[in-house]
Amino acid sequence: MWKNITVEESRRLARENAKDIIACGFDVSRTFIFCDFDYVGGNFYQNMIRIAKCVTLNQVRGIFGFTGEDHIGKVSFPAVQAAPSFPTSFPHLFGDSKDVHCLIPCAIDQDPYFRMTRDVAPRIGFHKPALIESLFFPALQGESGKMSASDPNSAIYVTDSPKDIKNKINKYAFSGGGATIEEHRKHGANLEVDVPVKYLSFFLESDEELAKIKEEYGAGRMLTGEVKLRLIDVLGKMVDRHQKARAAVTDEMVDAFMAVRPLPQMFS
Amino acid sequence: MWKNITVEESRRLARENAKDIIACGFDVSRTFIFCDFDYVGGNFYQNMIRIAKCVTLNQVRGIFGFTGEDHIGKVSFPAVQAAPSFPTSFPHLFGDSKDVHCLIPCAIDQDPYFRMTRDVAPRIGFHKPALIESLFFPALQGESGKMSASDPNSAIYVTDSPKDIKNKINKYAFSGGGATIEEHRKHGANLEVDVPVKYLSFFLESDEELAKIKEEYGAGRMLTGEVKLRLIDVLGKMVDRHQKARAAVTDEMVDAFMAVRPLPQMFS
Repeated sequence: MWKNITVEESRRLARENAKDIIACGFDVSRTFIFCDFDYVGGNFYQNMIRIAKCVTLNQVRGIFGFTGEDHIGKVSFPAVQAAPSFPTSFPHLFGDSKDVHCLIPCAIDQDPYFRMTRDVAPRIGFHKPALIESLFFPALQGESGKMSASDPNSAIYVTDSPKDIKNKINKYAFSGGGATIEEHRKHGANLEVDVPVKYLSFFLESDEELAKIKEEYGAGRMLTGEVKLRLIDVLGKMVDRHQKARAAVTDEMVDAFMAVRPLPQMFS
Repeated sequence: MWKNITVEESRRLARENAKDIIACGFDVSRTFIFCDFDYVGGNFYQNMIRIAKCVTLNQVRGIFGFTGEDHIGKVSFPAVQAAPSFPTSFPHLFGDSKDVHCLIPCAIDQDPYFRMTRDVAPRIGFHKPALIESLFFPALQGESGKMSASDPNSAIYVTDSPKDIKNKINKYAFSGGGATIEEHRKHGANLEVDVPVKYLSFFLESDEELAKIKEEYGAGRMLTGEVKLRLIDVLGKMVDRHQKARAAVTDEMVDAFMAVRPLPQMFS
């Protein structure tokens, strides 16, 4: 909807994304993954229309900032995005029960869609969805930068090699350390802007070790190079584990996760 | 989309409309009837999005006069209305062939949708649809009136009884005849505004008889009552025939026309 790619390419990317999700360890007996281009229809489409009838053009312009130059696919997309919040969009999972609650884990940029959805829900007889919103993950260049597909050095990809990861972190990860070793030893690192520390906050399993690194690095006893080395190790292992798990995901497994089927074990 | 009725009621009405269409004599081996609420999805939905991406909000505001108070279902509906113009929306009929032409018989109020569709078609690799546009059928009250569901006396319904038809035509069908018999004999009828003559132009099988009536009535030799009597006879027989044919249409027949299936005889 927002990019100049074909329907075919979108569907291909949806399956590729599904492989990454499956590689995280989801249980096929409790997980249904769908692509709008294949799943929209019937009850799901009927809910799209019920939602769309509750939302005016003025409202979506206010919420999403659409302008007259935007295409009408964008303008109506909020109703597509909202439909999975309601159980009757998935009759193979929930029958015709309206008394099922929905929890949506998403990044904060998706919040406007679900505020709108929460506004509409009671008007068409559904519970409001609940949300868990994740922080944005900063670009390697720091909070002011943005991870961007057009700049491969702005992010670590799950497809990066160990060498890529090492180079990107050493070369591009914004450091809050001092300009010289002397300054660093004297003033310590600025942890508020330091990207390696931010990344470790997300990925380091041990809160104890993280606290230790922050203390030592913040006091100037630990150097940027040492923190980066630890991050390279953590990310390297994580990416390697993901790449191995993803390589084991077959097209047949993707088909199984995306098959429209009852999932009785979801409720056990 | 335009009326305050539920999805369930829309689907019920769609099947009732299908019964009226089937009663006209369509051949089930060459006819596929669908309802958006049940058929939208897969290739059809993919075409909806391909179309929507080619049409801006400014364009639909210009074409259809949408305002900020209109709901987003209306705003995106032109893409839904356009999708059946393209063969790949019906893979069970046309496979993945794009080289199929589409002919759309419709009333003139639908013209803006298909002008938009003809504009979009070549941009997404399809032939432009061709159209046969029918005249609007005037209300019983004449050209200035509008047939309206909220005024049962504005139209003859296919569900009307012979008595209803007789009463409506005698009482409400706008006459172009003279105010008195003397005036009528002297000046004749104004055929331009006479509703019984307009209706006979649509429904009388014999062009010869129609010409005769126009001549006699226009010259004042035939009276309004006589023309109305002929119209009551023609419409009465037509409605009776339709009601009998419609009563014979079962739910199973509707299911058969609406089943998503190949129709090899369409091409023979």
